[in-house]
Amino acid sequence: MEKKDIYQQIINFWNNDMPFNRLLGLEIQQFDKEQSEVRFLWQDKLIGNPIQKILHGGVTATVLDIAGGVVAAANIIEQLDNLSPENIHYNLRKLSTIDLRTDFLLPGKGEVFIATARIIRSGSKVAVARMELHNEKNDHIAFGTGTYMVG
Amino acid sequence: MEKKDIYQQIINFWNNDMPFNRLLGLEIQQFDKEQSEVRFLWQDKLIGNPIQKILHGGVTATVLDIAGGVVAAANIIEQLDNLSPENIHYNLRKLSTIDLRTDFLLPGKGEVFIATARIIRSGSKVAVARMELHNEKNDHIAFGTGTYMVG
Amino acid sequence: MEKKDIYQQIINFWNNDMPFNRLLGLEIQQFDKEQSEVRFLWQDKLIGNPIQKILHGGVTATVLDIAGGVVAAANIIEQLDNLSPENIHYNLRKLSTIDLRTDFLLPGKGEVFIATARIIRSGSKVAVARMELHNEKNDHIAFGTGTYMVG
Amino acid sequence: MEKKDIYQQIINFWNNDMPFNRLLGLEIQQFDKEQSEVRFLWQDKLIGNPIQKILHGGVTATVLDIAGGVVAAANIIEQLDNLSPENIHYNLRKLSTIDLRTDFLLPGKGEVFIATARIIRSGSKVAVARMELHNEKNDHIAFGTGTYMVG
Repeated sequence: MEKKDIYQQIINFWNNDMPFNRLLGLEIQQFDKEQSEVRFLWQDKLIGNPIQKILHGGVTATVLDIAGGVVAAANIIEQLDNLSPENIHYNLRKLSTIDLRTDFLLPGKGEVFIATARIIRSGSKVAVARMELHNEKNDHIAFGTGTYMVG
Repeated sequence: MEKKDIYQQIINFWNNDMPFNRLLGLEIQQFDKEQSEVRFLWQDKLIGNPIQKILHGGVTATVLDIAGGVVAAANIIEQLDNLSPENIHYNLRKLSTIDLRTDFLLPGKGEVFIATARIIRSGSKVAVARMELHNEKNDHIAFGTGTYMVG
Repeated sequence: MEKKDIYQQIINFWNNDMPFNRLLGLEIQQFDKEQSEVRFLWQDKLIGNPIQKILHGGVTATVLDIAGGVVAAANIIEQLDNLSPENIHYNLRKLSTIDLRTDFLLPGKGEVFIATARIIRSGSKVAVARMELHNEKNDHIAFGTGTYMVG
Repeated sequence: MEKKDIYQQIINFWNNDMPFNRLLGLEIQQFDKEQSEVRFLWQDKLIGNPIQKILHGGVTATVLDIAGGVVAAANIIEQLDNLSPENIHYNLRKLSTIDLRTDFLLPGKGEVFIATARIIRSGSKVAVARMELHNEKNDHIAFGTGTYMVG
């Protein structure tokens, strides 16, 4: 199986088989070692404040965590010699978030939300990613930093 | 209206009228200036990792953010001279999360999850809270620190 | 007095009259609302680990805090109508760090260290900056996020 | 050599042979797996703001980082079977700070400052500690959370 097919398989699993991602409608759009991208559409159920009609801060934290986790996963895969599904699966099980900082910069208004993540520390045991959330007008809604266990 | 009735009204609003809180089944149990408590029950839709059956990290971040926001709200109310519903409402609109750190300590397993928050910095403009998430066995699942705009 | 002279006066004060900045040899090089830059040279007294000869993590946190504080100060000044020394002084006294996250990415080795900061949230009460520390080879040693009281 | 002698040796090394700790006058007072304590006395050279005469925020971040690092080091030692100086030395070299959050709660005023740290996540690769800084009047000056590489 080619690397791009492997990545696509994992994207499909994350988009379709992780219950909370589906509940929020998160869709992984980009998944490589340079950058990840996760999108979702506005839905009324994601509202935190019903008077101001803005995203719940927890939705923002969730999508930043996922975007960082996706790019950290790519980091794990790029370090593997054996790209068999079993070996990838075995190594991805080590992935978990250690800590996450979310900075809320602007009210979460918009129709389409795009979270991107890049690795700023890449190691065999721990990776650190920084993340951004923008809406379709490119307003910078949130910034994040996440530390992930990768080995 | 007595202060405890005012607090109860706000609890009802947050539990019933904030869409994302309802989606997750969050219930504010304690709301005073000393401490807040927010509970929720395990639901399969809150799963992040379907193989390990643990809470999504975004659920953890969400409930810590809410617990901190609740105790920050109590902090706002305690500083008011005029406890009319209009004045409380006006002042609570200033409440927003500036930043949130979540530390994931143990896998999110359990049947009942209890988030508590306490104020560690109380000001007229900014408040800081620290939060903990435990399950029904008192396992310490997560720790958090949140900075809130309160004025 | 022209704005650039005002900025230069403040730089002089910070570089020469803040004892801990002098102890570390920090020099503010750039100070405007877009970006700040703070430099310092390697000195043996800044060593944390004497075996590995790397900067103490506290030195890194200090210079990131200062770089963020400088750009937050520029943010305060840019919002003022009256640029008299008294008014600037009065408003800069409101500046303080609320919280600071430091991510240590690479061991702190080098001869010249350059910290830069940019504002990612600009408000009348609170500003948020993100900071980076590089050495003279452009190794990315640390990343930071700081929340500052500005009003 | 008994365990308490080993701990005392390491305390002596940290107090006397780490240049930046000496510059700040930091003294490790307690060093065990439950809690660490680091003290220092007011010195004018630690001033950040010369008008208000308060500690530089970088001093606060430094001592919190050290307090957390000390309790993380105890955590490493407690997991070792072989307590030879060589083995302890070898394992302590793995210790480094991954990230640090500092919350500044009150202006840093006082004569004696006491930082304490406790482990909230203990693992074979990563440990997380939370830290507090108080002065001699027990004013709660700062709070911190640190993530440490320990294996």
